[in-house]
Amino acid sequence: MNTSILLCACPDRPGVVARVTSFLHTYGANLVHADHHADLSEKVSFLRLEWETEGFSLDPSGFRAAFSPIADSMGMTWSVHHSDAQTKVGILVSAQDHCLVDLLHRFSTGELDGSCVFIAGNHEAPSAFAKHYGVGWTTLESKAGDDDTKRRSEQKILELCREHDVGLLVLARYMQVLTGRFLSQTTFPTLNIHHSFLPAFKGGRPYHQAWERGVKVIGATAHYVTEDLDEGPIVAQDVARVSHRDTVDDLVRKGRDLEKLVLARAVRLHLSHRVLRHRHRTVVFD
Amino acid sequence: MNTSILLCACPDRPGVVARVTSFLHTYGANLVHADHHADLSEKVSFLRLEWETEGFSLDPSGFRAAFSPIADSMGMTWSVHHSDAQTKVGILVSAQDHCLVDLLHRFSTGELDGSCVFIAGNHEAPSAFAKHYGVGWTTLESKAGDDDTKRRSEQKILELCREHDVGLLVLARYMQVLTGRFLSQTTFPTLNIHHSFLPAFKGGRPYHQAWERGVKVIGATAHYVTEDLDEGPIVAQDVARVSHRDTVDDLVRKGRDLEKLVLARAVRLHLSHRVLRHRHRTVVFD
Amino acid sequence: MNTSILLCACPDRPGVVARVTSFLHTYGANLVHADHHADLSEKVSFLRLEWETEGFSLDPSGFRAAFSPIADSMGMTWSVHHSDAQTKVGILVSAQDHCLVDLLHRFSTGELDGSCVFIAGNHEAPSAFAKHYGVGWTTLESKAGDDDTKRRSEQKILELCREHDVGLLVLARYMQVLTGRFLSQTTFPTLNIHHSFLPAFKGGRPYHQAWERGVKVIGATAHYVTEDLDEGPIVAQDVARVSHRDTVDDLVRKGRDLEKLVLARAVRLHLSHRVLRHRHRTVVFD
Amino acid sequence: MNTSILLCACPDRPGVVARVTSFLHTYGANLVHADHHADLSEKVSFLRLEWETEGFSLDPSGFRAAFSPIADSMGMTWSVHHSDAQTKVGILVSAQDHCLVDLLHRFSTGELDGSCVFIAGNHEAPSAFAKHYGVGWTTLESKAGDDDTKRRSEQKILELCREHDVGLLVLARYMQVLTGRFLSQTTFPTLNIHHSFLPAFKGGRPYHQAWERGVKVIGATAHYVTEDLDEGPIVAQDVARVSHRDTVDDLVRKGRDLEKLVLARAVRLHLSHRVLRHRHRTVVFD
Repeated sequence: MNTSILLCACPDRPGVVARVTSFLHTYGANLVHADHHADLSEKVSFLRLEWETEGFSLDPSGFRAAFSPIADSMGMTWSVHHSDAQTKVGILVSAQDHCLVDLLHRFSTGELDGSCVFIAGNHEAPSAFAKHYGVGWTTLESKAGDDDTKRRSEQKILELCREHDVGLLVLARYMQVLTGRFLSQTTFPTLNIHHSFLPAFKGGRPYHQAWERGVKVIGATAHYVTEDLDEGPIVAQDVARVSHRDTVDDLVRKGRDLEKLVLARAVRLHLSHRVLRHRHRTVVFD
Repeated sequence: MNTSILLCACPDRPGVVARVTSFLHTYGANLVHADHHADLSEKVSFLRLEWETEGFSLDPSGFRAAFSPIADSMGMTWSVHHSDAQTKVGILVSAQDHCLVDLLHRFSTGELDGSCVFIAGNHEAPSAFAKHYGVGWTTLESKAGDDDTKRRSEQKILELCREHDVGLLVLARYMQVLTGRFLSQTTFPTLNIHHSFLPAFKGGRPYHQAWERGVKVIGATAHYVTEDLDEGPIVAQDVARVSHRDTVDDLVRKGRDLEKLVLARAVRLHLSHRVLRHRHRTVVFD
Repeated sequence: MNTSILLCACPDRPGVVARVTSFLHTYGANLVHADHHADLSEKVSFLRLEWETEGFSLDPSGFRAAFSPIADSMGMTWSVHHSDAQTKVGILVSAQDHCLVDLLHRFSTGELDGSCVFIAGNHEAPSAFAKHYGVGWTTLESKAGDDDTKRRSEQKILELCREHDVGLLVLARYMQVLTGRFLSQTTFPTLNIHHSFLPAFKGGRPYHQAWERGVKVIGATAHYVTEDLDEGPIVAQDVARVSHRDTVDDLVRKGRDLEKLVLARAVRLHLSHRVLRHRHRTVVFD
Repeated sequence: MNTSILLCACPDRPGVVARVTSFLHTYGANLVHADHHADLSEKVSFLRLEWETEGFSLDPSGFRAAFSPIADSMGMTWSVHHSDAQTKVGILVSAQDHCLVDLLHRFSTGELDGSCVFIAGNHEAPSAFAKHYGVGWTTLESKAGDDDTKRRSEQKILELCREHDVGLLVLARYMQVLTGRFLSQTTFPTLNIHHSFLPAFKGGRPYHQAWERGVKVIGATAHYVTEDLDEGPIVAQDVARVSHRDTVDDLVRKGRDLEKLVLARAVRLHLSHRVLRHRHRTVVFD
């Protein structure tokens, strides 16, 4: 079943759900999912509506023409998506390939509503998996502290994204910090996996930090990338139990499973158009 | 903020959400929560709408008069609830009082949208907590295998429920099976906590069964009571890790915490009108 | 079954387990539990041995005389405990009583290897529960920013601890920071429950901080109190899922259940002599 | 660091830990891990001891000669393992390859103390991964209800196991039931992943069963295979939350992640010699 999905956010006011669902009904939409969230402290309404594409009488340009006046009258920001238009995804990776391998397998089985169109990384090893799954691979230069190298790498990534018409960039344990210069040129969101339970243990070597502090639970966090390192809106988090028996290596090992699951969950939620960002937080209609 | 809540179920068809939200909007409802679920395999739509009571122009009888024709035209079953009309709750208990004590504290702090109006049990010990919280206590007769005693006890429970106008009966580790005769006379739902992860370990001594089987996780299940023992629709479940170190007594101890949490969660969900039953399953809008 | 428990820590070296278990065997100990942990990075061995008291031929003073030379030769710190010598526990509380009520019920059912000997608090309300469970209550003065009042309150707490021969002090959501002056005079450990997943959200209003950051999981942490606020060795932590639907009040409500469970777990582990502290971390033999 | 590991089980009696650790100490063992469990209801002691191989003066045959008389005198069953002797693992698979792909990546990164020596399956598709990782692949015949085909397939599996000197056989979603005839000829244990929380939903189509019952949590179980289908000793279990929104397909998708994690955990525990079987239960020293 093909479906269309409308995501909306607008200042909280009476009649939002009624107006939008009546609009859809007028054009023959059969809803399969409707979720509405009013954030009473922020006074903002969020809405996700999903309906069967078959039987709906507006095509994309017709939809825009008919819906824009209604949306504008309510001060609404919105986007509409179609389940048969798979988002194109680019993946960046460094030496550790567990998240990449996990995502590639999920793409290959159709679990994710998108397709991986390129992989780039600053270590060669993961290229074998790109080849196995038939996805193009690009090696990125990296040299610690060298801004010229970084500029060239980021330029290369931007070119790949434009060439492949990327709708989502995923940092699958890509250990280079993206600059504000780069982010300001992107027209698509970027998802990152941080290997700690943010906001605990920001920055480098979070498992070492966690071991030092003697925590009994470790975590992983998938978030949109913003210019503030490890401060972007969180999409998914999960945790695992640890004990005094666990060395730093054990934390790293347990953490790998968390990272894979949490990043895959965030990518899936994003690709099925279930995430709305509002300031530095997210609404996740799962 | 006082709110009104509408719960609906009807055969799946286009326009359900639009018609109901438009109806509410006509009378000035400001929605704070709207959730819709279409069960595509059962072809049934479920809807929960919550709006501010202030500003809504229909009183309860006006609502019924205005909404019934719409609901009837869609083959809808529905109920409407008001957050200032606290549900009256009766609790049954046996020798183990941990769930009772937990619920009474939650009622006393206002965490649950209801009030406990009577407690009855076939062991005397828990009566001290009834007294502490100022709730009436009734001792029930029980004699293993004696049907006359059971009939008298159940008759007494029914009288208490009618006298107190009970809207929910909670079995807080009440270890007597309620008969079909009793259940057929109730006009309110009954929630039970079973001390296993149903459908595993039905019936008696589930922790002993779990220990014997050598499981690595134990659970608890809150469900509506039906004539089929331990087969009613499940509202909430949760689990805890166990290991070879845990004796049956340890499972019982860990299980008590699960039972408290799972029963309290189910009672809270029910009292905030978030649970819809459909055949032997539930829709939980949490 | 009465048991004796030996907790040891010593520099890592061959033969530690053999020497200690052989010593115990010589005097007729029948082990029911032996656990050993070598922290290879710190080069320290930790040991917990539990045996049936019946049949063991050394009384406490005999044990000390016989074991001390062995322990000294290995540079070992150690303590021995007996399951029939219940630890006396004092509890401090403020306005929120959920952890207190939870602990008192657990003490009353014998779930914890100890007894509550006094409760003191800077709000009157929880005194009703002290009375219900027959435990003495003391009201503590508190005045924001007044050091004299704080000195008198802490003096009062110390007196209560001495008078009742307290072996453990529990801060059950006691919202006053204990001073270094106070802590330097205690001869017993103090356990605190912090309502966040430390080290995230230290200090005040952690649920507000968590809501602001938009986390998808909240937590609670039980730790020993040291002069560094919220930096003491962690004994237990747990988490719960939250979503965009949860307001700060919902986080507070969900957090209460976490706080109860995590503090109770830490108190139980401590009272059953399963926790060893080493620098700012813990070894928990559960 | 290379280590040696001794696993023991014997009737419960005083002095077991002292005798075994003293024996090891005599020959220069430096323990890095010692764990003892006395099952008081079964009156059996279980012991896992791990020590640095360097500095230990007995070679394997010397160990057997020196330790056997001690073990025999205590009625002990035992086995000794060396961390540098990697167990050879065979994997069987059907159409679904997610567990296979997950295990192969873990073997390739050195996360598991063993190596995969052959893969066999009754569907061709997974052979591409065997090739990618350089492991030999064998296609097995399968024809529903045909005993001759089954006999030939099982004969082929036995030959592969013997040829490769397999120490563990893993059923990574292999959907054929192994016969008693086959199991009676194996000299190595076989681990299976069942896609439910056993003992709930034994047999076929457990996710469909779970959906029908309306459970709020699904699970996966890794267990040793015995002649009684889905009744073998459980090594690991885990669960995931589900809701009314989840279709059977969603349960299958969420279940895949559980299956991968739970099977990988069980394989890791087995390969690091942390699992002792006793009748139909396990002791897992993790």
